[in-house]
Amino acid sequence: MKKLKIAIIGASGYTGAELIRILLNHPKVEISALIANSNAGQKIDQLYPHLVHYNLPDLKKLDEIDFSEIDVAFGCLPHTTSQETFKKLLDDGKNTHLKIIDLSADFRLDDVADYEKWYGNEHVAEELQPQAIYGLTEINRDKIKKSSLIACPGCYPTSALLPLIPLLENDLIEKNDIIIDSKSGTTGAGRAAKQANLFCEINESVKAYAIGNHRHIGEIEQELSKVSTSEIQIDFTPHLLPINRGIISTIYAKINPKFSIEDIKNCLNTKYEDESFVRIIEGEPNIKNVVGTNFCLITARKARTENTVILVSVIDNLCKGASGQAVQNMNIICGFDETEGLQLAPLFP
Amino acid sequence: MKKLKIAIIGASGYTGAELIRILLNHPKVEISALIANSNAGQKIDQLYPHLVHYNLPDLKKLDEIDFSEIDVAFGCLPHTTSQETFKKLLDDGKNTHLKIIDLSADFRLDDVADYEKWYGNEHVAEELQPQAIYGLTEINRDKIKKSSLIACPGCYPTSALLPLIPLLENDLIEKNDIIIDSKSGTTGAGRAAKQANLFCEINESVKAYAIGNHRHIGEIEQELSKVSTSEIQIDFTPHLLPINRGIISTIYAKINPKFSIEDIKNCLNTKYEDESFVRIIEGEPNIKNVVGTNFCLITARKARTENTVILVSVIDNLCKGASGQAVQNMNIICGFDETEGLQLAPLFP
Amino acid sequence: MKKLKIAIIGASGYTGAELIRILLNHPKVEISALIANSNAGQKIDQLYPHLVHYNLPDLKKLDEIDFSEIDVAFGCLPHTTSQETFKKLLDDGKNTHLKIIDLSADFRLDDVADYEKWYGNEHVAEELQPQAIYGLTEINRDKIKKSSLIACPGCYPTSALLPLIPLLENDLIEKNDIIIDSKSGTTGAGRAAKQANLFCEINESVKAYAIGNHRHIGEIEQELSKVSTSEIQIDFTPHLLPINRGIISTIYAKINPKFSIEDIKNCLNTKYEDESFVRIIEGEPNIKNVVGTNFCLITARKARTENTVILVSVIDNLCKGASGQAVQNMNIICGFDETEGLQLAPLFP
Amino acid sequence: MKKLKIAIIGASGYTGAELIRILLNHPKVEISALIANSNAGQKIDQLYPHLVHYNLPDLKKLDEIDFSEIDVAFGCLPHTTSQETFKKLLDDGKNTHLKIIDLSADFRLDDVADYEKWYGNEHVAEELQPQAIYGLTEINRDKIKKSSLIACPGCYPTSALLPLIPLLENDLIEKNDIIIDSKSGTTGAGRAAKQANLFCEINESVKAYAIGNHRHIGEIEQELSKVSTSEIQIDFTPHLLPINRGIISTIYAKINPKFSIEDIKNCLNTKYEDESFVRIIEGEPNIKNVVGTNFCLITARKARTENTVILVSVIDNLCKGASGQAVQNMNIICGFDETEGLQLAPLFP
Repeated sequence: MKKLKIAIIGASGYTGAELIRILLNHPKVEISALIANSNAGQKIDQLYPHLVHYNLPDLKKLDEIDFSEIDVAFGCLPHTTSQETFKKLLDDGKNTHLKIIDLSADFRLDDVADYEKWYGNEHVAEELQPQAIYGLTEINRDKIKKSSLIACPGCYPTSALLPLIPLLENDLIEKNDIIIDSKSGTTGAGRAAKQANLFCEINESVKAYAIGNHRHIGEIEQELSKVSTSEIQIDFTPHLLPINRGIISTIYAKINPKFSIEDIKNCLNTKYEDESFVRIIEGEPNIKNVVGTNFCLITARKARTENTVILVSVIDNLCKGASGQAVQNMNIICGFDETEGLQLAPLFP
Repeated sequence: MKKLKIAIIGASGYTGAELIRILLNHPKVEISALIANSNAGQKIDQLYPHLVHYNLPDLKKLDEIDFSEIDVAFGCLPHTTSQETFKKLLDDGKNTHLKIIDLSADFRLDDVADYEKWYGNEHVAEELQPQAIYGLTEINRDKIKKSSLIACPGCYPTSALLPLIPLLENDLIEKNDIIIDSKSGTTGAGRAAKQANLFCEINESVKAYAIGNHRHIGEIEQELSKVSTSEIQIDFTPHLLPINRGIISTIYAKINPKFSIEDIKNCLNTKYEDESFVRIIEGEPNIKNVVGTNFCLITARKARTENTVILVSVIDNLCKGASGQAVQNMNIICGFDETEGLQLAPLFP
Repeated sequence: MKKLKIAIIGASGYTGAELIRILLNHPKVEISALIANSNAGQKIDQLYPHLVHYNLPDLKKLDEIDFSEIDVAFGCLPHTTSQETFKKLLDDGKNTHLKIIDLSADFRLDDVADYEKWYGNEHVAEELQPQAIYGLTEINRDKIKKSSLIACPGCYPTSALLPLIPLLENDLIEKNDIIIDSKSGTTGAGRAAKQANLFCEINESVKAYAIGNHRHIGEIEQELSKVSTSEIQIDFTPHLLPINRGIISTIYAKINPKFSIEDIKNCLNTKYEDESFVRIIEGEPNIKNVVGTNFCLITARKARTENTVILVSVIDNLCKGASGQAVQNMNIICGFDETEGLQLAPLFP
Repeated sequence: MKKLKIAIIGASGYTGAELIRILLNHPKVEISALIANSNAGQKIDQLYPHLVHYNLPDLKKLDEIDFSEIDVAFGCLPHTTSQETFKKLLDDGKNTHLKIIDLSADFRLDDVADYEKWYGNEHVAEELQPQAIYGLTEINRDKIKKSSLIACPGCYPTSALLPLIPLLENDLIEKNDIIIDSKSGTTGAGRAAKQANLFCEINESVKAYAIGNHRHIGEIEQELSKVSTSEIQIDFTPHLLPINRGIISTIYAKINPKFSIEDIKNCLNTKYEDESFVRIIEGEPNIKNVVGTNFCLITARKARTENTVILVSVIDNLCKGASGQAVQNMNIICGFDETEGLQLAPLFP
């Protein structure tokens, strides 16, 4: 079978490198173009020496690529740049054959006014937004299948939505008083040189940041509201951890008094029993058990107070929280087995 | 002035070593006895090579020490053992001169039935309990001054109670729906050899544990209930972090609708403005900024949802969360300046 | 094709878990038995929760396994135990069909007197020693192919021998004055619960240990002497690093005055140009670039002093330094492609 | 007694912050000026939030300070900038009262030609060089006492010279074949925002760098040659460690055949027995045991090969390797007790 041709736009960041790691292992695709405007002309191993062993294309500018030869384009760009890039690629009815899987925040919010509120700048590709499907695979699989513009969820939202959506959808928890306390590894902060992300600043430290107003709130509320009868507001606090990969989200919600913790566990088990990458477990979710994989582990526990449930989920922020879920979505829109290229065993320890 | 003579009972653990670090720097006391039954006969630097430079007494068994020569005894023992030890030391009206500062959980719960509920075994020194004062210095300073048996708070409770007590006391937050999401460095797990605490198991990982039922809930609820008009129940989830020292607690509470976030900030500022070790800050509390010190930094922020406040506090679990607060209490009961020996600048980075 | 049946004896340690990770990905074998005497009866995911997603056999005692059904047995046991176990398995001409790949030190030293000198106890399976081949794949490939008892090299020796053997063999460096300064991640210390290996003891620290007399000196000298005209003695210092995986060895040797640094580079390039897992690089070898892989990266540089070469090599101690090389050897003795199951991309970062 | 007035020029880097930590604890000095040209106008806690608790002067430009009011100026500037700054301060016979303690490399090399060779640019303050004393306290104490321009040693040289100088001076080791394999924490790389020093790049990794040609070779060879009868050349390889603080140097040298390992130990013991900060130990030097202190721990061991000694030393690179030694030198030139402000107990763990 002819392999599908892949372009990675924005290959110089951590999610780009993670896509390469996963796709190198994928039997049905080949990496045909690596695009990184400011590093164009370099070899990928000048940025990522660990990739020296693979026969990968050199980094190019966007304009150097003939997209008529490309089947799937992954966007690993900063927000705003992603809109501009895909608008340009698709302008004037060009490249209609192209399947686009965007990892930025640019097409996640259905209403461009929401985008502008949370990201502070105007949406420049408003006309594309209606085509975009929010790529939380286990929830939107059917819509993803028919789409050719996937907006992959943020890493924090992935960890929060997978446990919460089934419970809200089935009215097992209250719409109010949902608290999401998340902790992320530092790859989530990207590869740009910033003093605050230097080894000595992060190591032996943990901080809360964007307390009460992180941008991911927008997409979490949007997706929770969709499965609820009314608008949902949440409280969300992200924390930065001195580890490379992984998110652990601890979520507090009120159980609908008509239901019990057992109903909640049953609901989650039923929802995810046939899923390859979401597992409901009895033990303590530990970031270590998902590093390098596309898994999301979730536990549900009765809290101390009456009618409160504590949900804990763990994912690898670069994999299920970004590049892994992106490939999972590619598998769906390309008609491959959903787990193709993603059967990665955790690297432990 | 003659220096007070100190005994550290249970000198082989991390809180014992931290007490030594602090007391070596204290001008008004001398370390006269180091007790560690199972390591008796050894030099402290066989357990802690970094202490080789100091002229410290050898480790002894409890029975080898003449407590009539000791002014202050710190208890750094596991729970239950602490009760047994102090019961023995004080039995039959012995050693009534002794000031006892206990770092274990053994005398923190006023009602021995609570102790039995949370710790699973009978209290063996019930007769001592009525004398014990809960040593959260900034809250109980006056009672501590008159006591000679101080039960120093747990590390998690210290980080949670300092922000919450003033708010509950002044009716600024609701009694229900208090959620405490805490994250602790691994020194909190002690120095006993356990597979789960090996470097390779903890490094690059974070897990939630004792979800919904950690023993520290008992003392947090007890102390919050004391300043409230009714019994308080909380939800609490501890997490284990791959760092040596530090706790960050992120606390969610409902603001009493009669008050605002500004009232909350004012209340905290007023409560702690004259304190040496508690600081209300505007920036993001970061564990790094308190490592090695007795400080507690607290911030209060408006959450996303109406009437929710997010409080974030950081402490060094071994210092303000254990040995530092213990010395702060010693300073009070001995009539020293409260900051004596505790003016430690953070080790950064 | 029928898959070969594999038994892992000593599955509870880190090298056992790493073997499982690799073999799960190997298309031509199936894991038929996991043996761990002291944990027999448990499921592997009770020891390693990250393995819950795989359909693996339960842990059993050695005696419970019918080895007539097993094609290849990997030994992941402590030294001495390994000798006893394989002696028992092979006694009285039993199990002659079995291919044995041992990861312990038990069969690495050709002369049992050497074993006794370095390990301090008598060799109990002396009769097996003559069959054993030292499994440094790139050096002993032809002998490995014909053997059914492979003694996989230690992790430090692998990192030191790959750069040194071609240079000694070709007389490019002097036989004296070889210094190997190695630094290893903490998985090298195993999964047994020891205070010295607790997170808080290892984190933020590095120490030298076994200075001048580490047991791996025996096998390094043995293998170097084999390619030299006389007995070789080396100086070797291992250090313990606060990372999970990886070894970096910095090696100092005297260049034979008839040759130059360019001759050394050419020799290494020639030796390894057709190898899949050994790469001679110009840049700085970095542990990060091999974590999770079977690669060994080597650089050779002119030192400051006349006629000294500095060689730096990096490997993943659990993979090329243990379980990866073990599978590489299995591939050879089973007639598979040598890279089967080992085409693992590095997990970066 | 009136406190001496201190200026820290270049207060925004890690060595500046470490000087502040130490001097805050020093009873005989006060920090009168903090100079950081590019951050002038800011408060120090905008750069270092952990310093918010102290009453420190705001950051100023060099020109804003009246140096006639300053007794001691510490230079924490990059090389070249340091020369320019002190040249400017001392030009035209100005500020002759000023005692200068420079932490940069700018005045360490006696011969400005050596400076130019190792640092690649012309020395701009050649006229000051003859006054400068190399501030390796234990070796040059008498000269330091009479000087008012101290060039504090580099961190790697401090760890290498303290063990080597007494042995060379007494002819106990050979002049050739000295190999120094050093490993440093990442604070040694400074606080500038560089991609290579991001948390995710350093964490879980170790690399060798500047193999065979690091700039510190210049000062190590200069100081070793001074105590030897001929020019000395060494081999030196630095490595970068994923820890904040600390250097461990493993040194290999040839014992003069007239002497034994016992002579070496005796020599070191004799040299340092009255020193406060250098300790010869029998156990394994561990970075953990010196973090936060001004100690240097050294061990000497017989190697495997005849007539080789392995020396291992550990220091805190920011303290004894930089700011601590700087304060030690200040104490000497100001006539204070040498340990004033430096009696810091290690922060363990």
